[in-house]
Amino acid sequence: MTGAGTNHTIPSLTGGPAIILVRPQLAVNIGMCARAMANFGLSDLRLVNPREGWPRTGALRKGAYAAAAGAVHLLESARLFASLEEAVADLNGVFATTARERGQVKSVLAADEAMIEAAARIRGGEKLGILFGPERTGLANEEVVLADKIVSFPVNPAYASLNLAQAVLLIGYEWMKAAHGSAPPFQQAERSPGAPREMVVSFFEYLEGELERVGFFRPLAKRPVMQNNLRNMFHRMHLTEQDVRSFRGMVVRLVEGPRVERPKRKNQPSDDNG
Amino acid sequence: MTGAGTNHTIPSLTGGPAIILVRPQLAVNIGMCARAMANFGLSDLRLVNPREGWPRTGALRKGAYAAAAGAVHLLESARLFASLEEAVADLNGVFATTARERGQVKSVLAADEAMIEAAARIRGGEKLGILFGPERTGLANEEVVLADKIVSFPVNPAYASLNLAQAVLLIGYEWMKAAHGSAPPFQQAERSPGAPREMVVSFFEYLEGELERVGFFRPLAKRPVMQNNLRNMFHRMHLTEQDVRSFRGMVVRLVEGPRVERPKRKNQPSDDNG
Repeated sequence: MTGAGTNHTIPSLTGGPAIILVRPQLAVNIGMCARAMANFGLSDLRLVNPREGWPRTGALRKGAYAAAAGAVHLLESARLFASLEEAVADLNGVFATTARERGQVKSVLAADEAMIEAAARIRGGEKLGILFGPERTGLANEEVVLADKIVSFPVNPAYASLNLAQAVLLIGYEWMKAAHGSAPPFQQAERSPGAPREMVVSFFEYLEGELERVGFFRPLAKRPVMQNNLRNMFHRMHLTEQDVRSFRGMVVRLVEGPRVERPKRKNQPSDDNG
Repeated sequence: MTGAGTNHTIPSLTGGPAIILVRPQLAVNIGMCARAMANFGLSDLRLVNPREGWPRTGALRKGAYAAAAGAVHLLESARLFASLEEAVADLNGVFATTARERGQVKSVLAADEAMIEAAARIRGGEKLGILFGPERTGLANEEVVLADKIVSFPVNPAYASLNLAQAVLLIGYEWMKAAHGSAPPFQQAERSPGAPREMVVSFFEYLEGELERVGFFRPLAKRPVMQNNLRNMFHRMHLTEQDVRSFRGMVVRLVEGPRVERPKRKNQPSDDNG
């Protein structure tokens, strides 16, 4: 993957729900979460009591900043809170991510449903946040109680453990799809329009004539079926004018045999193109 | 997140498209891809010319196996190929992931569209594979040519670089949704059914009578509006019979004041429950 990287000439997407890492254990994981947020246009990172302390300074800075790759600005603007209550104080709605049932009477949404709801509520002016628990244990039940709804991910039941940055990545991805649309970042390369049908049919007739001449259609009774199959194969290619010229050129060459080099024809347009 | 982990008592999901890592640079990333595959029930891992060699043995084994976490079985069953042509030889369809436009006339699908198509084709008996390029550069154009279609991800255009395991994770996640359904792995905790409406209305009438008595509804002209708002607040909770008993008990206690401990009533059912 990769290949595009950070582009400093394009304004970065911002907004979306706050990503609230509750008691994260490893500074390097905080960096990876920042990177995942940047990939999908999330910009509000909040930390509640990170076990290794605040990674902006000191020995942990290097690992966290390396893991964040080009998303160091999110670490720089992250906010540190001493309690979850303070971290969610300004929010109008809170979702808690969890991989297992908590016996709490609260709606359970898949990540896509949750981010569709989040996009609508944020468009309506609300501030939302998503809670992610510590790497090893997940959120404590008392922390889940602070949320309005639970978010979980469809996973292989035999192997349900997502790491912290992966969970943030999936939330970011579904946020991107819900808030900014799910279209891929680029479309098929520009191509000329489909060839006019008369050009395609004229090529078919030329090809079938040559095939008839060399005895390709055997047994003869099968010719209509063989011809239909052949035409359908070509139609599945959505041939452009250029495609038709290429194919006709190939058949001409195969029929006429090796081209005889004639110096005087040099620099003249060729009939079989490239 | 986490909290559920690997469960060896549940049969693991298998199948899905082959994940084909083309010239991956770091053994540790191969391990992380294996882990992401296991999370979403993918089981066919193929490696084409990994730069650090085959991580099943030697110095690289440790990092790759640690990164795979509980998904070591996928590294054990992975297959090594000397060329991409050999790696895709048995496949009926090949998709190439890429983060940038390649100027190739090929359909470009978002990951969700691609996995919906993959699920349908695999159900129909086809074998498919998804190509992922090296970490730094992505697939070469000649490698993309080998694919039928291109797959890409909606990303923040200013920060479009997904790492290898993240790209595999998103493909796995969309495969899971398309092939096994997008429902979260558990539903809301069991709860008793909603209270019969006559029980709720009876509680409202009791509450409103007490509020009337203590002069809550002021100015009196506002009483109908205040009462409607109050009833709507309670209806938004989807009260169960237990919820209604809890609320009635709270109001009784607030109205009657501190409970007088009467030893003879011990072990009798309480009217305000817990």
